[in-house]
Amino acid sequence: MGELTLWTADWVPKGPRGFVRDLRLRWACEEAGLAYTVRTVPFEGIHTNHLDRQPYGQVPFLNDGDLEIFESGACVLHLAKKSEKLMPRDPAGEAHTLQWVISALNSIEMVTVPWWFLKVSGQGADNGLTGWVSSRLAHLEQVLTEREWLVAGRFTVADLLMADVLRVRDVRAFGHRPATEAFVARATERPAFKKAYADQLAHFAAADAKRASR
Amino acid sequence: MGELTLWTADWVPKGPRGFVRDLRLRWACEEAGLAYTVRTVPFEGIHTNHLDRQPYGQVPFLNDGDLEIFESGACVLHLAKKSEKLMPRDPAGEAHTLQWVISALNSIEMVTVPWWFLKVSGQGADNGLTGWVSSRLAHLEQVLTEREWLVAGRFTVADLLMADVLRVRDVRAFGHRPATEAFVARATERPAFKKAYADQLAHFAAADAKRASR
Repeated sequence: MGELTLWTADWVPKGPRGFVRDLRLRWACEEAGLAYTVRTVPFEGIHTNHLDRQPYGQVPFLNDGDLEIFESGACVLHLAKKSEKLMPRDPAGEAHTLQWVISALNSIEMVTVPWWFLKVSGQGADNGLTGWVSSRLAHLEQVLTEREWLVAGRFTVADLLMADVLRVRDVRAFGHRPATEAFVARATERPAFKKAYADQLAHFAAADAKRASR
Repeated sequence: MGELTLWTADWVPKGPRGFVRDLRLRWACEEAGLAYTVRTVPFEGIHTNHLDRQPYGQVPFLNDGDLEIFESGACVLHLAKKSEKLMPRDPAGEAHTLQWVISALNSIEMVTVPWWFLKVSGQGADNGLTGWVSSRLAHLEQVLTEREWLVAGRFTVADLLMADVLRVRDVRAFGHRPATEAFVARATERPAFKKAYADQLAHFAAADAKRASR
């Protein structure tokens, strides 16, 4: 283990800014007070220029010293081992953090992202996955009605990932779900999220400036 | 921590048999030689009869003594902490097992399951997610061309989950991917998989017999 380096793209179009998943890693580091450096792969040719580091041609990925890790969910869980601020240390707290992390990625995002993809691919918000999204989000709304944070009565990486999945504009606008909306607001009002978000926007804005000066 | 109890449905229709996700937990326990008991929730009313245990009304879920965990991916990772047979104990081996577990659930299954859902919902195999499935599976084929198992040169829960995602009939039939097919064959030829699979089929067959005798 050693120095943390978050890898992202050197530039992306305006659309995904604020939503590139390096934000999950930045956010986790900010919550835990872990120092990190940001490095980049070129946006040009991004789908093939770093397949040796990320087999699907995506960002982010992480260096922890010599250790290389991809998948934002795995990177965040790896970071969570470094700080009790990100995950409780008792067996139940750890198991339930893991449970809700997987729930965010494999029960919610597994439905919301393909639904969103169909929506922006021209099939609209009422597509073949809408009913499934509706059902999953309704169940989650029930959970969030009963608690402030998902695990152990306090913020963990489970909230970080769940909030990041839920804060997508089209998902946030899906139906009337006041407990979920309050949860997303609570999570994204945290100083660590705000810093991570601002830093990502600044990173890509700096790349705009560099492009303009060429 | 204490006795392991896997919870599944008391009965399911023929279609999903062999694919209900309690198989992932059975398989992990069999690989590690962990003793477990199987208990059930009624299939009738399954979407609402155990929301206090699984917020989406699904199975499986797990008891480890008093500890309750849902999400098959989280249950398998929890079991992996109990046996080095399921996950290496060195930091790199552990991080890369986590990486490929999340990859199975959040990069592959996130695309294949919604694609399959659209297919069986009447949109056919050539639906709005087909191109995305094709791309992800092609990248994974490249990875599997170069290695026998995903992590550390030997079977881990990363292979367990990836193989379980890939062995779905429609996914297995998607394109010509010889390395992936060989990987799925290798994983599902393991005695622990065969026992888990046979035990799940036997569990539901016994429920058929009980129903018939009523």
